[in-house]
Amino acid sequence: MPQHDVRPGYPLTLGEEPLFCPACGLELVTRVLEEDHRPRLVCPEGHVTWRNPRLVVGTLPVRGGRVYLARRSIEPGAGRWTYPGGFLEVGESAQEGARRETEEETQLRVEVGRLIGAYSRPHTAVVTLVYEAEVVGGEALPGVETSEVRAFGPDEIPWTELAFTTAESALRDWVLAQPGHEPRHEPEMVVLGDPADGDL
Amino acid sequence: MPQHDVRPGYPLTLGEEPLFCPACGLELVTRVLEEDHRPRLVCPEGHVTWRNPRLVVGTLPVRGGRVYLARRSIEPGAGRWTYPGGFLEVGESAQEGARRETEEETQLRVEVGRLIGAYSRPHTAVVTLVYEAEVVGGEALPGVETSEVRAFGPDEIPWTELAFTTAESALRDWVLAQPGHEPRHEPEMVVLGDPADGDL
Repeated sequence: MPQHDVRPGYPLTLGEEPLFCPACGLELVTRVLEEDHRPRLVCPEGHVTWRNPRLVVGTLPVRGGRVYLARRSIEPGAGRWTYPGGFLEVGESAQEGARRETEEETQLRVEVGRLIGAYSRPHTAVVTLVYEAEVVGGEALPGVETSEVRAFGPDEIPWTELAFTTAESALRDWVLAQPGHEPRHEPEMVVLGDPADGDL
Repeated sequence: MPQHDVRPGYPLTLGEEPLFCPACGLELVTRVLEEDHRPRLVCPEGHVTWRNPRLVVGTLPVRGGRVYLARRSIEPGAGRWTYPGGFLEVGESAQEGARRETEEETQLRVEVGRLIGAYSRPHTAVVTLVYEAEVVGGEALPGVETSEVRAFGPDEIPWTELAFTTAESALRDWVLAQPGHEPRHEPEMVVLGDPADGDL
């Protein structure tokens, strides 16, 4: 998830408000456009700088009924467990992005399958898609941004040591879809929280 | 979907490449950052301008086993049928955005329920979430960007007059989840196409 890193020399995070127009470099002001319903960032030339929520994509990689989770080595959620995942890139499909992030963070090769759920977090302007994936190769080893990769059975999920509320939601939905449970078709709970707490 | 409009005075679309840094207004260059895997837009001050795919959210509003579709009055897809939907805004949940767009475009009040599917279109860098919704009030009338709103039974879907491939995918998944069919748990097909054709 490089967009979360605070790198020396790259201080602009997506949470910061744009100040200058990316089309012409002039200063932005806030204005309500005709027939629009909320303020937008507009420059003196009339270019609009649209802002959009971001998409995180990830997988629950499964082999033999057990799900692989990764322990994060960086903030947010350092030392805690999550699905492998990260920000979707322009030009890749959600499934391709989920597979790429899984391979980067767990060194497992996977085939991406059904969507487990879409988890919306308006306080951080992120929507997370988590897919079930079949492990088809590789070896479970730490990769980018992770310190450990381990497989858990449905009764072994480290519920109190998860990095994000979306990991809890996706694992809950995965466990409920295992044999002996029915798949859920209920609406996803909307989680509200503090934009500063690093939750995704 | 105001981000699709070509408005006099607001020529910057999200498909255009940013030229100037939104943090400081300096010119952007393309560069691969340390430990990153693809080129990014960076200014001389070291600010990164991240680019992200966008999220479209919509509903299939259902009452008495029939689904309401809207006929679009603007491009792309003018004159053709679609789910009501549009771009998710910063600060709203996917479900809230889907409800807002539905009310704007069909004048129906809805309660948003289960996710029907997530449809990825990498050629336009859009991911679309379509929810099933229960109609709880309002009157089916054209609204913003629509010329007609009409209810269709599962056997009456205007398959050859749909505006977007995501409308076809979502309606296919909805029809297959009706009584007499089994809900699908297969991976969503990835649709490739021409970025210029206006498909979502």
